[in-house]
Amino acid sequence: MDKPIDLFLEELSSKAPTPGGGGASALVGAVGASLCSMVGNLTTGKKKYAAYEDDIQRILAASASLRDRLCELIEEDAKAFAPLAAAYGIPKDAPGREETLEQALKAAAEVPLSIMRTVAEVIELTGELMEKGSTLAVSDVAVAAAACRAALSGAVMNVYINTKLMKDRAFADEMNKTANELLEAGTLRCDAVFFSIADRLGGRS
Amino acid sequence: MDKPIDLFLEELSSKAPTPGGGGASALVGAVGASLCSMVGNLTTGKKKYAAYEDDIQRILAASASLRDRLCELIEEDAKAFAPLAAAYGIPKDAPGREETLEQALKAAAEVPLSIMRTVAEVIELTGELMEKGSTLAVSDVAVAAAACRAALSGAVMNVYINTKLMKDRAFADEMNKTANELLEAGTLRCDAVFFSIADRLGGRS
Repeated sequence: MDKPIDLFLEELSSKAPTPGGGGASALVGAVGASLCSMVGNLTTGKKKYAAYEDDIQRILAASASLRDRLCELIEEDAKAFAPLAAAYGIPKDAPGREETLEQALKAAAEVPLSIMRTVAEVIELTGELMEKGSTLAVSDVAVAAAACRAALSGAVMNVYINTKLMKDRAFADEMNKTANELLEAGTLRCDAVFFSIADRLGGRS
Repeated sequence: MDKPIDLFLEELSSKAPTPGGGGASALVGAVGASLCSMVGNLTTGKKKYAAYEDDIQRILAASASLRDRLCELIEEDAKAFAPLAAAYGIPKDAPGREETLEQALKAAAEVPLSIMRTVAEVIELTGELMEKGSTLAVSDVAVAAAACRAALSGAVMNVYINTKLMKDRAFADEMNKTANELLEAGTLRCDAVFFSIADRLGGRS
């Protein structure tokens, strides 16, 4: 995380296995969480929003912690890839290859699922900030919602790509089901926030 | 762009006026462009995709240039904010305030519109990579499409927030119309790429 942005984008652009789509999704989620913090910081201490001060303080604490968690998940995603690459490297007829690969796939799919669960919490903050945050920063709440939507969509792809290769189809189906539920609920919520704010700004009329 | 990611997110989280939602949208677009580069880099030189080698080289050049452009737009967005903040600072009854503010609003709305036009070009690359890129990286094409969708949505909000305050309603309506056309066409395209790949990975069955 102490890497310069241009270097991160350069590494993301390369064919090196990490960072990849999972880490990119977590970063986009972290952008969403940061925008929630920004809106909180533009709201706290303002007389007009004094009634919400306790909520804003709670939102500020939550958004900072969710941002940190998403930054950790960028690194966890990178770490889960090494065992997966190693498992693919095992000769096709070696004993135990299939079990090792299966375990690595399950571990690799857990990270994007954690990204989705974390982003779902950020999405709740956008819904709350749309009502309680400074109206001067309402467009930023919508940007946060759009980023969270993309983080969910990006992460779900990284669940799919791992579940697709699992032999344990019951486990794979269950994992896809959990991911799809997080995707659908989160997407609906993000779109509701986004379009409500777009209308408030008169952009779609 | 040589700023560490954690510092950028920290500044985004603060109440400092920049970076804000516009810069965040450009960064998310740059993540999408970088993922296009990654997929190109994972495809080039592979025998299986030799028929597409010329296209892949073109896509690699385009994605790198679009990423650079989006990084520039992060800084242009920050620069457009200073005259806007200065215009707001002019006393309400000072002569010329309205014209100065109007010009600053128009300049500030141009930047997110440029972000949208640039992201629209990245979106074209995702559509092409879905067909011509390595199937091993197809999930990353979908992550790129999701990021581009969010970059468009985020940028359009930063058009709306500026057009809302313009006195010249004909100009404002025209700008919203242009932005909404870019948003609608780009969103449809991103969703088509995203769902096509989700189905290919069996994630929604």
